[in-house]
Amino acid sequence: MTDRFTPTRDDKFSFGLWTVGWQGVDVFGGAVRPRLDPVEAVHRLAELGAYGVNFHDNDLVPFGASPTERESIVKRFRRALDETGMRVPMATTNLFSRPVFKEGAFTANDPAVRRFAVQKTCDAIDLGAELGATVFVMWGGREGAEADAAKDVRTALDRYKEAVDLCCEHVRERGYDMRFALEPKPNEPRGDLLLPTVGHALAFINELEWPDMVGLNPEFAHETMSGLSFSHAVAQALWHGKLFHIDLNAQRIGKFDQDFRFGAEGIRDAFYTVRLLEDAAWDGMRHFDAHAYRTEDAAGVWDFARGCMRTYLILAEKAERFRHDPAIQEALAVAKAGQLAEPTRPAGGLEEIRGATYDEPALASYGYGHERLDQLVNELLLGVR
Amino acid sequence: MTDRFTPTRDDKFSFGLWTVGWQGVDVFGGAVRPRLDPVEAVHRLAELGAYGVNFHDNDLVPFGASPTERESIVKRFRRALDETGMRVPMATTNLFSRPVFKEGAFTANDPAVRRFAVQKTCDAIDLGAELGATVFVMWGGREGAEADAAKDVRTALDRYKEAVDLCCEHVRERGYDMRFALEPKPNEPRGDLLLPTVGHALAFINELEWPDMVGLNPEFAHETMSGLSFSHAVAQALWHGKLFHIDLNAQRIGKFDQDFRFGAEGIRDAFYTVRLLEDAAWDGMRHFDAHAYRTEDAAGVWDFARGCMRTYLILAEKAERFRHDPAIQEALAVAKAGQLAEPTRPAGGLEEIRGATYDEPALASYGYGHERLDQLVNELLLGVR
Amino acid sequence: MTDRFTPTRDDKFSFGLWTVGWQGVDVFGGAVRPRLDPVEAVHRLAELGAYGVNFHDNDLVPFGASPTERESIVKRFRRALDETGMRVPMATTNLFSRPVFKEGAFTANDPAVRRFAVQKTCDAIDLGAELGATVFVMWGGREGAEADAAKDVRTALDRYKEAVDLCCEHVRERGYDMRFALEPKPNEPRGDLLLPTVGHALAFINELEWPDMVGLNPEFAHETMSGLSFSHAVAQALWHGKLFHIDLNAQRIGKFDQDFRFGAEGIRDAFYTVRLLEDAAWDGMRHFDAHAYRTEDAAGVWDFARGCMRTYLILAEKAERFRHDPAIQEALAVAKAGQLAEPTRPAGGLEEIRGATYDEPALASYGYGHERLDQLVNELLLGVR
Amino acid sequence: MTDRFTPTRDDKFSFGLWTVGWQGVDVFGGAVRPRLDPVEAVHRLAELGAYGVNFHDNDLVPFGASPTERESIVKRFRRALDETGMRVPMATTNLFSRPVFKEGAFTANDPAVRRFAVQKTCDAIDLGAELGATVFVMWGGREGAEADAAKDVRTALDRYKEAVDLCCEHVRERGYDMRFALEPKPNEPRGDLLLPTVGHALAFINELEWPDMVGLNPEFAHETMSGLSFSHAVAQALWHGKLFHIDLNAQRIGKFDQDFRFGAEGIRDAFYTVRLLEDAAWDGMRHFDAHAYRTEDAAGVWDFARGCMRTYLILAEKAERFRHDPAIQEALAVAKAGQLAEPTRPAGGLEEIRGATYDEPALASYGYGHERLDQLVNELLLGVR
Repeated sequence: MTDRFTPTRDDKFSFGLWTVGWQGVDVFGGAVRPRLDPVEAVHRLAELGAYGVNFHDNDLVPFGASPTERESIVKRFRRALDETGMRVPMATTNLFSRPVFKEGAFTANDPAVRRFAVQKTCDAIDLGAELGATVFVMWGGREGAEADAAKDVRTALDRYKEAVDLCCEHVRERGYDMRFALEPKPNEPRGDLLLPTVGHALAFINELEWPDMVGLNPEFAHETMSGLSFSHAVAQALWHGKLFHIDLNAQRIGKFDQDFRFGAEGIRDAFYTVRLLEDAAWDGMRHFDAHAYRTEDAAGVWDFARGCMRTYLILAEKAERFRHDPAIQEALAVAKAGQLAEPTRPAGGLEEIRGATYDEPALASYGYGHERLDQLVNELLLGVR
Repeated sequence: MTDRFTPTRDDKFSFGLWTVGWQGVDVFGGAVRPRLDPVEAVHRLAELGAYGVNFHDNDLVPFGASPTERESIVKRFRRALDETGMRVPMATTNLFSRPVFKEGAFTANDPAVRRFAVQKTCDAIDLGAELGATVFVMWGGREGAEADAAKDVRTALDRYKEAVDLCCEHVRERGYDMRFALEPKPNEPRGDLLLPTVGHALAFINELEWPDMVGLNPEFAHETMSGLSFSHAVAQALWHGKLFHIDLNAQRIGKFDQDFRFGAEGIRDAFYTVRLLEDAAWDGMRHFDAHAYRTEDAAGVWDFARGCMRTYLILAEKAERFRHDPAIQEALAVAKAGQLAEPTRPAGGLEEIRGATYDEPALASYGYGHERLDQLVNELLLGVR
Repeated sequence: MTDRFTPTRDDKFSFGLWTVGWQGVDVFGGAVRPRLDPVEAVHRLAELGAYGVNFHDNDLVPFGASPTERESIVKRFRRALDETGMRVPMATTNLFSRPVFKEGAFTANDPAVRRFAVQKTCDAIDLGAELGATVFVMWGGREGAEADAAKDVRTALDRYKEAVDLCCEHVRERGYDMRFALEPKPNEPRGDLLLPTVGHALAFINELEWPDMVGLNPEFAHETMSGLSFSHAVAQALWHGKLFHIDLNAQRIGKFDQDFRFGAEGIRDAFYTVRLLEDAAWDGMRHFDAHAYRTEDAAGVWDFARGCMRTYLILAEKAERFRHDPAIQEALAVAKAGQLAEPTRPAGGLEEIRGATYDEPALASYGYGHERLDQLVNELLLGVR
Repeated sequence: MTDRFTPTRDDKFSFGLWTVGWQGVDVFGGAVRPRLDPVEAVHRLAELGAYGVNFHDNDLVPFGASPTERESIVKRFRRALDETGMRVPMATTNLFSRPVFKEGAFTANDPAVRRFAVQKTCDAIDLGAELGATVFVMWGGREGAEADAAKDVRTALDRYKEAVDLCCEHVRERGYDMRFALEPKPNEPRGDLLLPTVGHALAFINELEWPDMVGLNPEFAHETMSGLSFSHAVAQALWHGKLFHIDLNAQRIGKFDQDFRFGAEGIRDAFYTVRLLEDAAWDGMRHFDAHAYRTEDAAGVWDFARGCMRTYLILAEKAERFRHDPAIQEALAVAKAGQLAEPTRPAGGLEEIRGATYDEPALASYGYGHERLDQLVNELLLGVR
């Protein structure tokens, strides 16, 4: 079935190999689905209308593969890309699965572990660059602590900065066209992770050697775990000029990392996020970092992938309607939404502000009409207007 | 009863007038305690060993007071300070109680409200400066949204920046010795607040006109509401050189803003925070932004204040013991805690890292002894070692 | 504008006087709207299509009113009911606002407070009965603790049971046609409340003297504060035959008690709740325990009330479509949803179960198609199918 | 080192084989520790002073083992028990790890899966009975939903009841001395689990065929995930006479299931739980359902186990001191804690309550001294009184 919500390459949707390839292993149970060949993933995603596919180094090339094996794998993968026209917009490295990283990677207490992590990341950067990736995501899955005594956070941030600087140095030396995107997360698998939110990561960047090379990869699930508004986080990242990549999925607040299909929960926040990206004409990938429920077989995985993209397109259409809905626009005027763009500083500057008299009772009694506005948006979302 | 946990002025403890003065009004019930005269608050806190007292403009001078009333109030208050030797280390302004701010203050959609908010803040700065405050806290209690459609976050951040810049300008023009400290909070009273965490506020500062004038006032309860580690947040603020003030209290994760007595919940995070402040020899005020339970009469309020300070001193003593406990120090060595200070970059730089061979199995099998370390800290906290 | 989502009396919508009458007082700010006359509330709600109006004793009759005042107020209120045809389906009592209840009401440590609370409740029952209420809600807003040492929970439950038994006794003696509905809440205003969830209250009922007289009043916001599924809670209450009343509103997980307009957050859980009530042909009131944002003037309050009812009707229509959507019904078959109704016990009983051989690999490899099903529901909700 | 906190068999501590045997597999990484032989676990735990060891069927006997293998394993295990004097107080079954249970077990939509689950449970009951277990825990790890449309909760509760009834029937037929303990959990691994809290499970029991045979196994981490007070939950379970078993560990609110060492977080709630168990002279096992951090090697596991028991004994000593601390007892009197035991019903019954006059202002102005009391408890916990 093809309809107006059937994606095409122009929609710039991408998936991670690890998303459609997730076999369902969780803390309480083993794999429920067979391994997915990356080449099959490329072909299936291409058929569904995706633009690109992303990977951790070891999603594609198993850890410890010989140069020959690596070459053979890359060759076969590249052929799949060529056959389908699919791209690799982003690459990343897995610094969390192997036991060596159990105490951290870039911020491990042991310098040898830290260096090994940097080495592995540089190798992954090379692999990504080789396949055309221009964004390299950094998620520090094991950078954190349960026993706070064991980790000095300030020193750990020194080491985090040092590792990111080293990776930037590598990219500069090689002359790659590649930028970094930090992915914040508050907890899980560690009790508390470093750079736990979009805000903490944005602040961190300012201390780096080459801050222009580094931005953010905000993830819907990760911000939502902390109960924060994802669309607000994305807006602040855009405000700083630092939205380099995005991870779309779904999550309920205060739960384990759920990585549900985009829109499966939190549809309002999803809508405002889509509206923001579209209004900002943001030119990055609409990347889905999610996976199919564990109840699914292989076929369910493709239903999952299709659903992510459809929901984005449905919400994008609603964002377009939002802009042209007369009742909504009228309600925005009642809410004085447009007047937020007016500078607070008047012609007469601070002096004028200080000298003026404000009619506080009149300002206080004004009704902003948010109930009506919000209900209109809700009915737009529910498709009854 | 005086013991080693009885505070003195040297401990630099301060309270807000609004903390000991809280009358118990909440969403579900009215005042349970009579109004506390700020002058009495000064005397009582001085007797208990506090160093200073802080206030919102309208904690001291009622909104709408005439210049004569203001003068008389300030004169009487200053006399209490002089009699007791108490200081006013910090001042702030109330931009959340009056209905005029129901839709925001610095980021209200209505420019007149924004200007009124800046005017009120400048007046509060003058009041604070007059009484000797060198830190001015900014908590944007109504800067946020429930109906997301009504508030463009990026534009709101433009206005937020503009307002803070205007306040900085005012301080510079007047030549006050005063710095600003932003206080983040994730939600309540608004559905979602702007600058929801320490991280978001730290990032925001980098876009200001005079970033050196602005730092953070992290609050234990506010970070904890989002489930984030408060001591990690304070550590990152210190790392950026931006810890200008601190709000100590207690809170359970994912609840309404509880503002409990310091240490009443989350004793471990409280301990690591105290240890951090003491280890860093941070020279700011140990400020308590908390209030007595609603079950208390006036006497209970002073028990509450005494408890906040005692718990800090108890934890500070434990932090000192931590440094000298041989078993803990040995466990830190097992955890390789000290090796985090070693730069990751070796003499040979990135090239050396990339060329080296790492003994992954050996690194992976090492036991860091965190269970033992954490239990030792727990027993230190429980006073059985 | 009248459309198919314009409510009528047949839809059985009710509001509390305290909901449309909320003046916006919160912990951080005062009233933003004038007091609403209960008589006006009745007329406005009737015009909007509501069926009934509910109240706490002191929403209608101020605390301490003389018998004459009470009579006059009731007479005037009854006239409004008569003029509009509005009913009072439910009444309740306010055991949380006055300072006397600061340490609890039915479970206060002081026996005099407990007796006063029972007296006040009996008076409120009489008032409710006089105005035709057949459900009496009990929300123990101050039954709980911050300082756990001060409250023995087991003894408190003894007292809680005793108080509910006393109220039942009163109803039986008077021969009222009235049942009780307990309203659970996890926290706020107390640190931890007794009977924190629907489950705890359901269990408690079994220990009462007249368990048949007592059921539940689950509230969307209250269950959601704990991160629990509201529709699951309502389903379990129905399963026990204990859904006596319901409080519809909206809430984000892990936040202060938000009491937003129904559907403003958590639209999926709202949909499943509506579907459940409609599928179960539940004959109780669709009661809204919510309030308008603090940004609103008086007009916004009626937009709020209208929005609650419209959203319910929109979701009820979707529930109806769900039942007849062929693709959804097909997906339910793939999910084997209908087979859950088949008893697990076979004809041969336990022995047959134990003796049978199960084809585990075949059962394990089945794909339940939840991704497709869930996406279909999402698209139904979004109005694109 | 032996001190007064070194456990002995008389302290009735037990551990699950799966706790000390956890190899560190989580969603983001593989095993970090070698497999632990159950026989070694028995010996090590016995040396540390534990009383017993518990298991899921497949912790001891691998799924699919032949009768001969089973016999050999059980024989070897029993020998370890005999050599050490260790007991098996509790057994349970794993209905969550194998893919066949991905959509549920007792409440799976497919009747064959449900029957297989009952069969597996009966086998596990036999195994437990054979080794002397008198409590059988039921944790429904996969009983729940992500796609709510696929699971009718009311029908699922019918099936849940049926399965528990079948298991009771089995125990009655065999004449085992065995009771069941339901273990609630709000979420993870499923999006929402059935019987999410202690309250929901307590209510459920009342609908069973043999309610006397079934009680609760509350877990610290599981209640805490929802932000509920664990000690309150245990108190309510005791109040209903339904505390059949307990799972002690540690957890932060609103996070993934952390299963930390007892006392590692939430020390106050842990203290009140220990005080409750000791004051109630509860005669069940003090069972730890926790695991060592992933940073640990095999030695760290035994530090972890030692720490759990030590912390319990430290807190039990503090509970004893609480009872005899004159200042605390005096503060309890101020809080009128003892007066909660007085029946609310006076000699003259309801009539007396209704006819009495209460001095509301006097009752309202009383100060309960909770700040002082709570601080005293805090200082007791911190070991400075």
